[in-house]
Amino acid sequence: MTTQVFSGERRVDVLDPRDRGLAYGDGVFETILVHHGAPVWWDAHLARLQRGCDVLGIAAPDPGFLRVEAEVLIAGCMRGVLKLILTRGIGERGYTPPSDTPTTTVLMLSDAPSPPPRDGLVLRWCDTQLAIQPRLAGIKHLNRLEQVLARGEWNDASIHEGLQCDTAGRVVSATSASLFALRDGRWLTPPVADCGIAGICRAWILGNVVEACEVVLTRAQVESADVLILCNAVRGILPVAVLGERRWSLHPRALALRDLLATSEKAFEKYPPEDA
Amino acid sequence: MTTQVFSGERRVDVLDPRDRGLAYGDGVFETILVHHGAPVWWDAHLARLQRGCDVLGIAAPDPGFLRVEAEVLIAGCMRGVLKLILTRGIGERGYTPPSDTPTTTVLMLSDAPSPPPRDGLVLRWCDTQLAIQPRLAGIKHLNRLEQVLARGEWNDASIHEGLQCDTAGRVVSATSASLFALRDGRWLTPPVADCGIAGICRAWILGNVVEACEVVLTRAQVESADVLILCNAVRGILPVAVLGERRWSLHPRALALRDLLATSEKAFEKYPPEDA
Repeated sequence: MTTQVFSGERRVDVLDPRDRGLAYGDGVFETILVHHGAPVWWDAHLARLQRGCDVLGIAAPDPGFLRVEAEVLIAGCMRGVLKLILTRGIGERGYTPPSDTPTTTVLMLSDAPSPPPRDGLVLRWCDTQLAIQPRLAGIKHLNRLEQVLARGEWNDASIHEGLQCDTAGRVVSATSASLFALRDGRWLTPPVADCGIAGICRAWILGNVVEACEVVLTRAQVESADVLILCNAVRGILPVAVLGERRWSLHPRALALRDLLATSEKAFEKYPPEDA
Repeated sequence: MTTQVFSGERRVDVLDPRDRGLAYGDGVFETILVHHGAPVWWDAHLARLQRGCDVLGIAAPDPGFLRVEAEVLIAGCMRGVLKLILTRGIGERGYTPPSDTPTTTVLMLSDAPSPPPRDGLVLRWCDTQLAIQPRLAGIKHLNRLEQVLARGEWNDASIHEGLQCDTAGRVVSATSASLFALRDGRWLTPPVADCGIAGICRAWILGNVVEACEVVLTRAQVESADVLILCNAVRGILPVAVLGERRWSLHPRALALRDLLATSEKAFEKYPPEDA
């Protein structure tokens, strides 16, 4: 993994232990697919980063600065993942947000994830529920203990992901991907007004697939769906094969959705590598 | 501020940007009063740190190691604050908790806070509510955006603290202190089973004052209390003078509580410095 750390626009290389990202999770992040030396869905990632900064009251860095430094880091990378962490910067003890501290930016380039399973993902339900917090819902902030606890519920490598409900029992998402359920011909995904993250690939589907919309989903509705897919900005669209006792075979509608994405975004053309 | 960083028990001095404390707030912390070169309520802080590690599934460092390194850092400090941050350590991308990474320990020594106002604290109500999350309630984890947002609601220096309710409308605490309300002769403090932190000074009061107990409190019950105090491990017991429109004069029961603490714990003898 290659890493760069900036205080404001100044390269500092090390993270100060007084950084409020460490102290309080006081910041946001993006996880961006890199394909042929370019960041995929850059504008959408930057827009979500900006929304997160607005919610937290953090002055976002200049987008041009972020783009230039990202391009330096990912130059020559054929396929990888760029993680961008942005924090409020260094603070003294106490919650009071400092007024004029430079923000901290961390850029990390790592390998692309291993290919998804050819036959679809195996999912489980997680016991860890997501708290309802409209003030923080939708943004990709650094307070992620609920996802850490959920992902820690299993270490069986044959299970790829876990679904989480909120504390009111409504289905929200997988620990690191959005969820769509095909029911009555429509692609349904839970709203993110109370908890969860407004996923980039999720937004792409909502914006490009006429029959996709936000709907509250129960566990029973998810389990009885005709098709399930997970999606995120790094792995694109991932059909689901198993959820607990329920099994699905690869469905033409899931493959059509994946093909639509591949047609629209070159980075997903050859992926997932069933075609390889 | 003096800072030391350890990976396991090895001094490293810098924080790795891949630390899961930064990535996810995947850790816990303690804020410990230092008095005449010794940490105050050390055992209680270590016990809460251990509970937090148990909840998060983090292997806590050896208490002897922590004590030795803390004593090295605070040697000669007459009055200060020792902050101890403990994280799961360095991780690769993704929520999966690494199995055998050394934990990260950060020790930071800073100045004691300025003395509390002689006439009592001025409080306000915060709009930012605390989400209900029993899985994380009570422990002092690093996911603190709700407190950061609440503390960011005002920058009027004449307001010392803000009270927060949970999303069900029940009063929980101040942003960085526990709350007790005297009603019908009893010191009442909200439970921390659904959200909030099990404060060290709060536990001292519950354990040493017969008429102190946990009770669910509404805003109206707090506003109509005979006395309010805030408390935490660094500042001890702090009488409240103002909450919004309500005013209280210094009450003998608040002063008696403070005297009881001063008698029990030498570190609070001369503090707050009305006596100075």
